Amino acid sequence: MSMNSFGHLFRVTTWGESHGPALGATVDGCPPGVAITESLIQHWLDKRKPGQNKYTTQRREADEVRILSGVFEGQTTGTPVQLMIENTDQRSKDYGDIAEKFRPGHADITYWQKYGVRDYRGGGRSSARETAARVAAGGLARAALATLAPEVQITGYMTQIGPHGIDRDRFDWDQIDQNPFWTPDAVAAAEWADYLDGLRKSGNSVGAIIEVVARGVPAGLGAPVYGKLDTDLAAAMMSINAVKGVEIGEGMAAAMLTGEENADEIFLGNDGKPVYSSNHAGGILGGISTGQDIVVRFAVKPTSSILKARQTITKGGQAAEIITKGRHDPCVGIRAVPVGEAMMACVILDHILLHRGQIGGAVGETRGRIG
Amino acid sequence: MSMNSFGHLFRVTTWGESHGPALGATVDGCPPGVAITESLIQHWLDKRKPGQNKYTTQRREADEVRILSGVFEGQTTGTPVQLMIENTDQRSKDYGDIAEKFRPGHADITYWQKYGVRDYRGGGRSSARETAARVAAGGLARAALATLAPEVQITGYMTQIGPHGIDRDRFDWDQIDQNPFWTPDAVAAAEWADYLDGLRKSGNSVGAIIEVVARGVPAGLGAPVYGKLDTDLAAAMMSINAVKGVEIGEGMAAAMLTGEENADEIFLGNDGKPVYSSNHAGGILGGISTGQDIVVRFAVKPTSSILKARQTITKGGQAAEIITKGRHDPCVGIRAVPVGEAMMACVILDHILLHRGQIGGAVGETRGRIG
Amino acid sequence: MSMNSFGHLFRVTTWGESHGPALGATVDGCPPGVAITESLIQHWLDKRKPGQNKYTTQRREADEVRILSGVFEGQTTGTPVQLMIENTDQRSKDYGDIAEKFRPGHADITYWQKYGVRDYRGGGRSSARETAARVAAGGLARAALATLAPEVQITGYMTQIGPHGIDRDRFDWDQIDQNPFWTPDAVAAAEWADYLDGLRKSGNSVGAIIEVVARGVPAGLGAPVYGKLDTDLAAAMMSINAVKGVEIGEGMAAAMLTGEENADEIFLGNDGKPVYSSNHAGGILGGISTGQDIVVRFAVKPTSSILKARQTITKGGQAAEIITKGRHDPCVGIRAVPVGEAMMACVILDHILLHRGQIGGAVGETRGRIG
Amino acid sequence: MSMNSFGHLFRVTTWGESHGPALGATVDGCPPGVAITESLIQHWLDKRKPGQNKYTTQRREADEVRILSGVFEGQTTGTPVQLMIENTDQRSKDYGDIAEKFRPGHADITYWQKYGVRDYRGGGRSSARETAARVAAGGLARAALATLAPEVQITGYMTQIGPHGIDRDRFDWDQIDQNPFWTPDAVAAAEWADYLDGLRKSGNSVGAIIEVVARGVPAGLGAPVYGKLDTDLAAAMMSINAVKGVEIGEGMAAAMLTGEENADEIFLGNDGKPVYSSNHAGGILGGISTGQDIVVRFAVKPTSSILKARQTITKGGQAAEIITKGRHDPCVGIRAVPVGEAMMACVILDHILLHRGQIGGAVGETRGRIG
Repeated sequence: MSMNSFGHLFRVTTWGESHGPALGATVDGCPPGVAITESLIQHWLDKRKPGQNKYTTQRREADEVRILSGVFEGQTTGTPVQLMIENTDQRSKDYGDIAEKFRPGHADITYWQKYGVRDYRGGGRSSARETAARVAAGGLARAALATLAPEVQITGYMTQIGPHGIDRDRFDWDQIDQNPFWTPDAVAAAEWADYLDGLRKSGNSVGAIIEVVARGVPAGLGAPVYGKLDTDLAAAMMSINAVKGVEIGEGMAAAMLTGEENADEIFLGNDGKPVYSSNHAGGILGGISTGQDIVVRFAVKPTSSILKARQTITKGGQAAEIITKGRHDPCVGIRAVPVGEAMMACVILDHILLHRGQIGGAVGETRGRIG
Repeated sequence: MSMNSFGHLFRVTTWGESHGPALGATVDGCPPGVAITESLIQHWLDKRKPGQNKYTTQRREADEVRILSGVFEGQTTGTPVQLMIENTDQRSKDYGDIAEKFRPGHADITYWQKYGVRDYRGGGRSSARETAARVAAGGLARAALATLAPEVQITGYMTQIGPHGIDRDRFDWDQIDQNPFWTPDAVAAAEWADYLDGLRKSGNSVGAIIEVVARGVPAGLGAPVYGKLDTDLAAAMMSINAVKGVEIGEGMAAAMLTGEENADEIFLGNDGKPVYSSNHAGGILGGISTGQDIVVRFAVKPTSSILKARQTITKGGQAAEIITKGRHDPCVGIRAVPVGEAMMACVILDHILLHRGQIGGAVGETRGRIG
Repeated sequence: MSMNSFGHLFRVTTWGESHGPALGATVDGCPPGVAITESLIQHWLDKRKPGQNKYTTQRREADEVRILSGVFEGQTTGTPVQLMIENTDQRSKDYGDIAEKFRPGHADITYWQKYGVRDYRGGGRSSARETAARVAAGGLARAALATLAPEVQITGYMTQIGPHGIDRDRFDWDQIDQNPFWTPDAVAAAEWADYLDGLRKSGNSVGAIIEVVARGVPAGLGAPVYGKLDTDLAAAMMSINAVKGVEIGEGMAAAMLTGEENADEIFLGNDGKPVYSSNHAGGILGGISTGQDIVVRFAVKPTSSILKARQTITKGGQAAEIITKGRHDPCVGIRAVPVGEAMMACVILDHILLHRGQIGGAVGETRGRIG
Repeated sequence: MSMNSFGHLFRVTTWGESHGPALGATVDGCPPGVAITESLIQHWLDKRKPGQNKYTTQRREADEVRILSGVFEGQTTGTPVQLMIENTDQRSKDYGDIAEKFRPGHADITYWQKYGVRDYRGGGRSSARETAARVAAGGLARAALATLAPEVQITGYMTQIGPHGIDRDRFDWDQIDQNPFWTPDAVAAAEWADYLDGLRKSGNSVGAIIEVVARGVPAGLGAPVYGKLDTDLAAAMMSINAVKGVEIGEGMAAAMLTGEENADEIFLGNDGKPVYSSNHAGGILGGISTGQDIVVRFAVKPTSSILKARQTITKGGQAAEIITKGRHDPCVGIRAVPVGEAMMACVILDHILLHRGQIGGAVGETRGRIG
């Protein structure tokens, strides 16, 4: 009943608060024999790290990960891997003003109501800082995938910021790493830069949509009916701070399609594996991977900490107006890209292990042969 | 690692295939002292039952539930409750044609690949028939809620079928039970009737969107950060057959909002509890209920079994054309309404028990007082 | 948090009361492709069935198992297997006298205190009748083992009844099926027959010790440090009704040994696998199987339902004397033999699946090679 | 499927190796509002700390615990509590000799076979050093019990070392803290001192029996049938390094009793609660606490690292003789006393939370009233 844990066989427990001494991930169930170093994990943390450009919070954290257990002579041992990140920049004085007032749209008030504890230092456990631990765990998951299923490739990118979406016709995989928004559409990137500049100056924030794609995932992963691959992905993405919607393949738009339109027709590929005419399904049928790309999208709401005055109440029950100063992201969705990738990596690895336990055989080996 | 189970303390395991002798739900963790009878559960099963109007499958099942354990003298005992539904109409001969061919958009092919078993009898475990067991469990959850938190009211309804959405200005709670689509918009209901008639005649199908609202849910429910109330709801809804997207509150549209727009401002109500100016959050902040209505939406893709010819392959690897005869729903989303309600009931009850275990106190009692 | 479930990947949930309409086991996680029939499971149920000789309760139950799901054309499909046993002989009138009085040494009083429900009909869920569901699940586990690890052989037998233990020098595997006590010592069997006759006539009961051995278990099974093979076996055996102690290998007597005596010396066998000079460890080191016989022992306390008058109180709080009439086992330990075997089968299978998920490779394949 | 975790609602995950940089416990599910400091936990760690007298290993570890998360202003917040202990004395050079040879009776060989990793530095994860993390978690559990159920008192003590048991007639609670063996029998303590001196000089080791008693535990705790209080205690104790047997109340000796002897007769106490004439049951009936003392015993085998020469093999498959130098406990059972107490504290707390979630009401409140 560990509610700070996710995963079945690759099980990640995150711990730590925004302004405590440290935070981290206790990862249980990583297979032995996976080559891993701190710098391999650091690579992904650096991608998420705040303060890298003017579109993300100016809080500066080294976000240096230490491996405290589970690794010996450069390889995992099969025992729990403890990944710790010390908090270095804990300027909690910035938050003095919100010790009493609840921020509209923020978890301040519900944490207070539930736990009766007001950890006003940057949101405590509800802070997006918790996602650093997810990214660290995701780095380990990627390393394990590199050993067990090297053909799996996981890439996240932004498709929408506020009213501005990408143009799929301009989709370019190579563009993703070339702009601060990890978007495959260079034109959109330029547009967003201007748009966010304006927002930031006005002290406002905005939501975003992130898409994460896993390519090279073998058919057969997923554990119907309550550990379906899409079920676990939906939970993984919805658990990320500020996420309000999750879609697989066509997502909500599937409601608008007819059965004829939605049917991804099946052909036999040259390698004897099924080939599909389209991917409305997002790579998952009946909760099980088809071998096509796994496509997940999620929407992140705008940061609730803004410079715009909003009505609220205090812990003492008084009406108040609140303006949240401090260092916040005008679009927290940007930093959600590596987080979404990390969750995808963890879920895919977990289901590879689970499939192996339930069905046996090598990864990517399916029981039912076609042809 | 029970992948046919969901819930933490109120734990439901469903079992059974579309055309086996029976199916059901093994419910573990129902509190003792809940008044329950078979007819109380039957009420909800009847709502979901196929063959009730021309818009749902013509398969006729009595769907009579039997309580085999866990209830003594009209009350739950605290031991597992076994809810069994016998299959009576198992005309599996209808399915002969698809024993070899895989239906595009259906789990046929992935189940075969994963398990190496071809239970062609109506989809076996991947059939939407499995949801009858969920509805039975949901009936028990509702009975437990009636005892523990009688103010909780759960209502599902359709908001969209194909291109036709409801008009929120015509929203009428009382209308929901008055039409075969459980929609609060009487005008939309009439429109949909025509639209579906046309689709059915042409042998096609269509997707839909269902919204489920829980009113009267106390503040403080939800277990951050991986057992958040919205995380569990996302998983619950995504696990339903054919669901491709899940939204909380604003959902995907949250991406389009600014922080200023999205902030549900807070005021103090006459009863000393917080009152919000709006509910963009869908009743959940930081994974914890605010006391507002919990609002969840999910999209159901169109039924994959259609009379339209589609290209596919056979188990033997041959190219083929498939037309799926048999008794299918032109809009499986209709029957998903009571299923969504059932999942909501189970999740809310589960989190009431979990909150009690973690925090203590009566249901609806929060640790942090305001004012 | 399913407390009526055990196992990690092979997960068994038992349900049902002594005098309800039925009881059974919902088994989730059985691998697909296991050949299974009702009669294969019935074989083990018949071994446990009451009323077979004068040393066990005279309640007569057909104990016929039905497979309601998860099996298609004689093979498991990978979906949940529902094993149901209907109760036929529910003479609950016999129990009238104990509806009010609590039996000393029985769960009557604690179930009442915990749940506030008095299911006086034969103990309800606390009845040893629940173990029939375990034996059914164990039958399925044995069938899966026959496919996955055919060299595994599981045998239980009694080693002690009251003050009378077996003589290890007379240990004869072939004798076990030849007497009503499943004991390998024919002389002890004769002794026990006389002893139990006397006890039964005097209306008394007695405890017993059962030993269960698994031969042919590959090295490497077990998941340190809280899913150790011995940890799971201890939990499995302690969960059986009336069990008060569990031992692995030397068990409690290990306290009396020196390190020199206890060290099972290691040699290299002809097949390149380790061979041990002795088996004080009971086949488990550090929670992981060594490849030697797994040896578990457990003690069953005497049946609490006896004809001897004991002091007790009523539900209403009145002092009372109680004599429990009805059909009870003078030595409930006898029927615990097949139950212990079933638990062993489930645990071994579960750890084979878990090992496969965590480490990969074929069953019995270990990662570390010696030599 | 976290195999380095235990507990249902109070969930402890331990991590770390004997000679890595640190080890610790990630505790999820501790209720909010529990007063806790590092020194409260340190108290229990100091009790377990090695090198305190000549009867335990001379390895010197500061064993200083740091709280890295989950505590704010001296109180738990309801979020995960990270308890970290840095390893300071990692003289791994002492272990050079055993990098190749497997110690008979030690987990060296099975860890190698399972994981294919040879962490020869003091046993890695299989080292008894892991129990420091349990003791830290147990310290937190005790603090939570002090808030939730202050009447609960947990005490462990030794009852047997090798052939020398205590005399129950000399049992004196006050004696337990007065000798290095935590034994209630002062005469036995003196005897054991002599006996262990001899053993240590000869380079041998010996087993022991520890008894842990929880007084003041309310009736009604325990979750039949696979989360019984005794089932969880058996698993908890068997998971401790070197434990080979677990007993509840009469334990294995229950096999020798008749039903008449074993029945703890019931009377009504002055406070309206049941009073028992004896406690053969060890405070648990049907897996649920009776309100009597909970009595658990476990046997610890002798340390396998001894100076006596034993036959073994090397990783390379060569026959060899082994003598384990280094700093080891002649009787590792001594340090198991605080570990057993810690496990008891965690299990009791966990079941208090679970009972609250399942049944509701205050701790110690039962649903069924007597009288």
